[in-house]
Amino acid sequence: MEFEESGIGEECGVFGCVAAGEWPTQLEVAQVLTLGLVALQHRGQESAGIVTSNGANPPTYTTLKGMGLVNTAFKQEDLLKLRNVNLGIGHTRYSTTGISELQNCQPFVVDTLHGKIAVAHNGELVNASALRKKVMRHGVGLSTSSDSELITQLLALTPPMEELDTPDWVARIKNLMTETPTSYSLLVMYKDVIYAVRDPYGNRPLSIGRLVPISKLHSSGAGEADTEGWVVSSESCSFQSIGAKYYREVQPGEIVQISKNGLKTLSVVPRPEGDPPAFCIFEYVYFARPDSIFEGQMVYTVRKRCGRELAIEAPTDADVVSTVPESATPAALGYAQQSGLPYVEVLCKNRYVGRTFIQPNTRLRQLGVAKKFGALTDNFAGKRVVLIDDSIVRGNTISPIIKLLKEAGATEVHIRVASPPIRFPCYMGINIPTKEELIANKPEFQDIASYIGATSVRYLSVEGLLSAVQRGIESHGKDERISSSTKTTRYGHCTACLTGKYPVELEW
Amino acid sequence: MEFEESGIGEECGVFGCVAAGEWPTQLEVAQVLTLGLVALQHRGQESAGIVTSNGANPPTYTTLKGMGLVNTAFKQEDLLKLRNVNLGIGHTRYSTTGISELQNCQPFVVDTLHGKIAVAHNGELVNASALRKKVMRHGVGLSTSSDSELITQLLALTPPMEELDTPDWVARIKNLMTETPTSYSLLVMYKDVIYAVRDPYGNRPLSIGRLVPISKLHSSGAGEADTEGWVVSSESCSFQSIGAKYYREVQPGEIVQISKNGLKTLSVVPRPEGDPPAFCIFEYVYFARPDSIFEGQMVYTVRKRCGRELAIEAPTDADVVSTVPESATPAALGYAQQSGLPYVEVLCKNRYVGRTFIQPNTRLRQLGVAKKFGALTDNFAGKRVVLIDDSIVRGNTISPIIKLLKEAGATEVHIRVASPPIRFPCYMGINIPTKEELIANKPEFQDIASYIGATSVRYLSVEGLLSAVQRGIESHGKDERISSSTKTTRYGHCTACLTGKYPVELEW
Amino acid sequence: MEFEESGIGEECGVFGCVAAGEWPTQLEVAQVLTLGLVALQHRGQESAGIVTSNGANPPTYTTLKGMGLVNTAFKQEDLLKLRNVNLGIGHTRYSTTGISELQNCQPFVVDTLHGKIAVAHNGELVNASALRKKVMRHGVGLSTSSDSELITQLLALTPPMEELDTPDWVARIKNLMTETPTSYSLLVMYKDVIYAVRDPYGNRPLSIGRLVPISKLHSSGAGEADTEGWVVSSESCSFQSIGAKYYREVQPGEIVQISKNGLKTLSVVPRPEGDPPAFCIFEYVYFARPDSIFEGQMVYTVRKRCGRELAIEAPTDADVVSTVPESATPAALGYAQQSGLPYVEVLCKNRYVGRTFIQPNTRLRQLGVAKKFGALTDNFAGKRVVLIDDSIVRGNTISPIIKLLKEAGATEVHIRVASPPIRFPCYMGINIPTKEELIANKPEFQDIASYIGATSVRYLSVEGLLSAVQRGIESHGKDERISSSTKTTRYGHCTACLTGKYPVELEW
Amino acid sequence: MEFEESGIGEECGVFGCVAAGEWPTQLEVAQVLTLGLVALQHRGQESAGIVTSNGANPPTYTTLKGMGLVNTAFKQEDLLKLRNVNLGIGHTRYSTTGISELQNCQPFVVDTLHGKIAVAHNGELVNASALRKKVMRHGVGLSTSSDSELITQLLALTPPMEELDTPDWVARIKNLMTETPTSYSLLVMYKDVIYAVRDPYGNRPLSIGRLVPISKLHSSGAGEADTEGWVVSSESCSFQSIGAKYYREVQPGEIVQISKNGLKTLSVVPRPEGDPPAFCIFEYVYFARPDSIFEGQMVYTVRKRCGRELAIEAPTDADVVSTVPESATPAALGYAQQSGLPYVEVLCKNRYVGRTFIQPNTRLRQLGVAKKFGALTDNFAGKRVVLIDDSIVRGNTISPIIKLLKEAGATEVHIRVASPPIRFPCYMGINIPTKEELIANKPEFQDIASYIGATSVRYLSVEGLLSAVQRGIESHGKDERISSSTKTTRYGHCTACLTGKYPVELEW
Repeated sequence: MEFEESGIGEECGVFGCVAAGEWPTQLEVAQVLTLGLVALQHRGQESAGIVTSNGANPPTYTTLKGMGLVNTAFKQEDLLKLRNVNLGIGHTRYSTTGISELQNCQPFVVDTLHGKIAVAHNGELVNASALRKKVMRHGVGLSTSSDSELITQLLALTPPMEELDTPDWVARIKNLMTETPTSYSLLVMYKDVIYAVRDPYGNRPLSIGRLVPISKLHSSGAGEADTEGWVVSSESCSFQSIGAKYYREVQPGEIVQISKNGLKTLSVVPRPEGDPPAFCIFEYVYFARPDSIFEGQMVYTVRKRCGRELAIEAPTDADVVSTVPESATPAALGYAQQSGLPYVEVLCKNRYVGRTFIQPNTRLRQLGVAKKFGALTDNFAGKRVVLIDDSIVRGNTISPIIKLLKEAGATEVHIRVASPPIRFPCYMGINIPTKEELIANKPEFQDIASYIGATSVRYLSVEGLLSAVQRGIESHGKDERISSSTKTTRYGHCTACLTGKYPVELEW
Repeated sequence: MEFEESGIGEECGVFGCVAAGEWPTQLEVAQVLTLGLVALQHRGQESAGIVTSNGANPPTYTTLKGMGLVNTAFKQEDLLKLRNVNLGIGHTRYSTTGISELQNCQPFVVDTLHGKIAVAHNGELVNASALRKKVMRHGVGLSTSSDSELITQLLALTPPMEELDTPDWVARIKNLMTETPTSYSLLVMYKDVIYAVRDPYGNRPLSIGRLVPISKLHSSGAGEADTEGWVVSSESCSFQSIGAKYYREVQPGEIVQISKNGLKTLSVVPRPEGDPPAFCIFEYVYFARPDSIFEGQMVYTVRKRCGRELAIEAPTDADVVSTVPESATPAALGYAQQSGLPYVEVLCKNRYVGRTFIQPNTRLRQLGVAKKFGALTDNFAGKRVVLIDDSIVRGNTISPIIKLLKEAGATEVHIRVASPPIRFPCYMGINIPTKEELIANKPEFQDIASYIGATSVRYLSVEGLLSAVQRGIESHGKDERISSSTKTTRYGHCTACLTGKYPVELEW
Repeated sequence: MEFEESGIGEECGVFGCVAAGEWPTQLEVAQVLTLGLVALQHRGQESAGIVTSNGANPPTYTTLKGMGLVNTAFKQEDLLKLRNVNLGIGHTRYSTTGISELQNCQPFVVDTLHGKIAVAHNGELVNASALRKKVMRHGVGLSTSSDSELITQLLALTPPMEELDTPDWVARIKNLMTETPTSYSLLVMYKDVIYAVRDPYGNRPLSIGRLVPISKLHSSGAGEADTEGWVVSSESCSFQSIGAKYYREVQPGEIVQISKNGLKTLSVVPRPEGDPPAFCIFEYVYFARPDSIFEGQMVYTVRKRCGRELAIEAPTDADVVSTVPESATPAALGYAQQSGLPYVEVLCKNRYVGRTFIQPNTRLRQLGVAKKFGALTDNFAGKRVVLIDDSIVRGNTISPIIKLLKEAGATEVHIRVASPPIRFPCYMGINIPTKEELIANKPEFQDIASYIGATSVRYLSVEGLLSAVQRGIESHGKDERISSSTKTTRYGHCTACLTGKYPVELEW
Repeated sequence: MEFEESGIGEECGVFGCVAAGEWPTQLEVAQVLTLGLVALQHRGQESAGIVTSNGANPPTYTTLKGMGLVNTAFKQEDLLKLRNVNLGIGHTRYSTTGISELQNCQPFVVDTLHGKIAVAHNGELVNASALRKKVMRHGVGLSTSSDSELITQLLALTPPMEELDTPDWVARIKNLMTETPTSYSLLVMYKDVIYAVRDPYGNRPLSIGRLVPISKLHSSGAGEADTEGWVVSSESCSFQSIGAKYYREVQPGEIVQISKNGLKTLSVVPRPEGDPPAFCIFEYVYFARPDSIFEGQMVYTVRKRCGRELAIEAPTDADVVSTVPESATPAALGYAQQSGLPYVEVLCKNRYVGRTFIQPNTRLRQLGVAKKFGALTDNFAGKRVVLIDDSIVRGNTISPIIKLLKEAGATEVHIRVASPPIRFPCYMGINIPTKEELIANKPEFQDIASYIGATSVRYLSVEGLLSAVQRGIESHGKDERISSSTKTTRYGHCTACLTGKYPVELEW
């Protein structure tokens, strides 16, 4: 619901698991997949799906899909039937288009000359339109508008299907990667193998974890020999709930083969010379769960650092610092810490607010936000409040909150936003309102404070955000096992929605 | 439920509608489609779907699909949204595989270089396996095991997609028809046109109707000028409930273009020289609704004729003739009429029997059929009964009925079956048990009467069946508007499941 | 659906089972109840419920209830939990009021000073309004408008609750029976006993059956010693599907105690002197399943006799006799037999027609009946048809059928109705339209033939109906085990809806 | 889900609304009820119900009920039909018994001699068992085990129903209150009036709010004349989301009549002399939403004070203070403030964790809590953590959290609980595990720290809790409009579950 209100949304989450030892047993792989997806639920609540394989030759695949949260999408009785499973991939989907159909639910499975492949995808192909034409010109009909189906057909299509015993899927994946530069984090399952792929710009995240015995879960001594299986996930936050240890990220451009025999980097497709990586900076700002790790640092810590940076850039003469729960809390605590102002809670969130039906044109509509937040008056009445938000997109959410606080007794409400204004559309998998809807592009933005009713409004600068993010990326060669050749440009972040500088040239 | 019990089942029903006049209004096309499918519900109860088009360029298609009967598959609120519709096609599906998924629900829609096409299909491609390989070798991934998806991709694929303004769909359909001889009755929707296609052997039925003003519905004077729209359906029984007049059948091999401008035969793809048509004879015997018309004759009348023929071939010294309700009733009445024996009802059917859950291994299971039929004792106690059934497949349904009648007082129960024994599998769209399961292939068949507990058992001969069917096919050139060139072999029926003589050579 | 269209409907069906031997096992009683209700499904499709007891002291009752048909009302998983069950009662409900709520679903269970009782009821209390007042004046709040709750509270209420070890339920039931003369067939479960009660007028049916080993099910030699349990049902048609033998009817006014120790008549509450029984004659005409037995005769046979009687009273100069399927078929066959005219089928029914949504004000509405019936043209085109219907209530169903037949080629359509016109409301459990809606009370009735478009219309007379019904009630003392004292008036039938003569005086 | 895990649960929430001016319009009352219940959702998630009245004479009541959250319990289409509504009451239910049935869903409606009343109830009658016997001895059957049905029947029953034009409901309510001392907060709707009742001990909360024009919602100048309607709710947190101003609490023993003409105190039933009020102290500790107001103080502030008190009673030598989100956060912030230790977040909560199905006996079960919480390692690795929890019931939730923190790097984990140990059952509406299940009654409690794996464990004392609660109850006569006669004992709190001292003597 928040996502809808804030107006920005992640595309999806992907998750995969390969059993490699005694555990997870065949009976448990499906549950590992389910729990892994539950931990990625914040990346998509529209639909969920898993495809499992028994790893045999030919393999037996089973697909479970459903609308809604993971808990409702899969029926217990169907999960119970998933015995004899050795690996699988899953997907949780966020609807960017409003067309909410089971048909678009991933993973996609297609039958090819060499048998079935299953594909789960997070991201958005920047040249999807041209690729669709290309595929259709070859005579392929596309049954959905989904990039994932497109990817599946591209994998089936090129290079021309040879009738060999062992198809060269890696060549096909590399071919796909030359056809489209970004953005995709991809899981491709074929028989007993999962190929985990990240686009050359590393725009979407993808992390690998190791299943180890519970007794060794938190000990640093769990060696490679203790590995009982591999998991791969959009975010590392899903590892702990299934008993997995964080291992490393898939690198930009890397194709990792995961099987019961372990990991193997099959190829690292390079970027055009001079191009830095372009990891989506909004994963740090907004999308990712705070306990996930990207580029060696915890998301929570980056957010806190954003708050500190903001306190330096935009100090405030006020009495208390607070947060719009829950996503802005790390930044608010950082701001409080840096500024020395006390941190208090001013809003109490009703956890149960859902899609309550309200008649249009009634007075109740005007009360809007009050359904969701209660004012903790005692904590701020008669005081000057600094309210930290993580981002302001349309400006229609923060405005009633300010009104609520003022009417409940705040003498001043200063808005401090822990990220720069969003001004440009994203073509790489984030659902952002049209340019016209973005408050930063409206004339009212010139006097945003009076427009939203705040005493003052300040944003974190792009430089401040980049500094907060990149300061923490230390050398983490210790948990990287790929060749150092691609490391000339160690890191880089996509700030296109803030600056309009896209990582690749866009053509239409 | 009967289908499941009897063990044979139709594949599907297809239905299409193009508005051509004042009516059906745009608001009503979806309802015409729905009602048309309801009338074809006996051909498939697993899932239902419709795809509508506004007929514009480019067109807007809308798809409704759901599991179960038509009434439950579509939600009223979704139907209400289908305004601004000018044409559409629909499908009702029978599950032959046991894999019951929304994914397999037709019609299929795919996007091609020239825009979207929608396909609904009744039948089964005899060379599906080879065609799948061919398509996949070209680099197309297939996401279902459905022949309909295969057809859709074949249409998208061949001949190579040209980037023209007006794609040559007819060439593509003809190409498809050369790739696969049978069996298919096909509706292909593209923008504002429906192509209605029947395979060269005419294995599956397909009839055309004209929507006319209600006032002229039953008058013979409704001329072409009165036409307000066109419908096309697996069976003509669906015409009356939507206010349509029977027009004619699509001929074997014919491609008919249906648009608001009327009908047009675009091509008639011929059979190999010497091959007669091969219309499935079981449409007459079992599948079709009795009020449908094939080859100029009403199905009910053919069934009655089968009963008469049976009375001649297999007369019985008995007191009364009766039926296993409801499908065998026409044959029973025919038998009674021919034999002079009185017709009575001996079984009362519980219309509400559904999938009642019965614990395995309980005494209740043994009572089986008694849940479904009640004995009308007064009508047969102390009498010798001739019981007519339309077909015997596994032999496990008729046996408890005989037991029921005998225990309720019938002194003799003579089974007379209005069709020959089924001995061979069908590869053209009918779901028949494996050869081993067919009672006619079991050793017990040698003494079937004692096996099923009957006083005697006799079947209609293949010759008798063919005679009953073909005697009634008179010249009906008056309602045929296609060239006479294809009429050298006027008619012919597929009896493969009875004789093992398949219309085309089967290769694996 | 038919019931809705015809405009008359039964209230409900009741069913009970007590295990008395090895079988039904505790696991199976719930299934016997379920199957028993499925066989009574024609008496009510709105909701279904069962209450089971383990028969212990104190007993454990379990309730399953749900909307819709029995098959959907109970979930398999809930049925599976019903182990350790020794007896139970069930109910299938027809909604007379339009208020369709789970709350009204029977059986009702209430806790009393002596423990819980469960009540299932078929019928309608003629003095319900006064009884409600009486109960409420005593200080009891009623939570539904259901007669069954009223009965339950009356049983709890009177005579004043004594704190005894063994409550005198029989005295309470007798008291109830003096409070309200009719109409009710009632099952009351208390601990390990079911009381089966029929009102003194015997207005609603109630039959008893014996569960016997399957091997002895149809043998006449199954003696009392073979009894493995008892069932009691609104109609005997439910016996065969559960392996029970018909035993006898509960007599008007009789209170039968059913326990694992067998049957015991506890009391027979007499009618006022001179009052004959008043068994609802429409059970014969319309409601009951044709294989049920009332008063020693099969319903089917009575209906056939009505057809014969009608042929005598209203002969027709015509070519063929037919039926409006399916309920009028016995009468049609009787008419054909008596008149010597051939019986043919003229209408083919679509078994799958359900609540198809049709937009108001469209042409499709006018086609109405065509959705449900197809014309079997060959059987009547160019012929004069006698069409038998079982009853005509509003006249709005038969009219479009006549139109359909005429337009399809019938030269004449003579309607013959196998029961007299309904003119009066029923206050004893049958849902009949208001007096104004009944076609027999409309001015148009004077020329009903032209109103409905028939060539001629004739009804069976009240005398004819009574003769057809009562001619077959022979002495059947052999299966009656109650004292003969109440037999002075052997039988009598309520014809109130036809004649306005109600069995008891009605006060408001 | 938390409630289930923590093992204590509130019974229910009640809400009522009477329109008194232009707004809420008849169309909106149902929506006010719905939103009011959404704000009380934390008090019960099992089922929800509303009953509305048009206020006419006789009134028309409409009931909506359903299982699950308010958002799913009511269908939009049903809410839309609720036009012409002037008042209504609602209920949200927490299942204490495990028997989760629609039948137990409140409000209860019963028909009485004077028409229908509707009742919604929060609490549990301490003498329910004796009252049930009494009611049943009078001859009333009870159809549920619910106290609310019992209350409804008691209201119908006593004093004996008189046939008057205007029934004396107040006398009946007073009579009820003499029959049962506690605990209940009650809404009784009759025609156009709601009676809001709190038991003499004031065990359960009940607050009144005034609907005012939005423009005056937060102005202190909204006078009585601005009142547009009245609402009454278990908690004042529901007021702001519907545009209502807090007015006052219903006083212990008070019967308030609410109609469109305003409020009227009809009676204040006194407690036995010397008995103080007994407001449930766990409403402060755990149940209530932090923005609710009881006895003139905000719940959040009380919880913060508990944290401060705890810091004084149980100081810790540690590095950081944190919370088990979300309910312990106010206490944690209070503890941090008082102790001077920095407040950090150590756990990240997965908002989407629901009833994920996990196979029994798998390793995944052992991971338990990790599904729900992620460790924010950076904030505590290498540090000594004080973790504040609001209460410890069974001890099985906190244990895995401690393990998680330790394994993720906390050097010490000190548990500080902001309430005393729960040792005794509650008979007044709170669902507490059996005495045996409570960790405080187990031998392990002697060394609780080692049992749950903590470095140390300390609880707030009963005195500390009472001090934190009562210190803030200032004179708030200004918003009380009832006579001062009952104010001799101003306040008092039930601590029975902590001390075993029950407010009334319990008899069984």
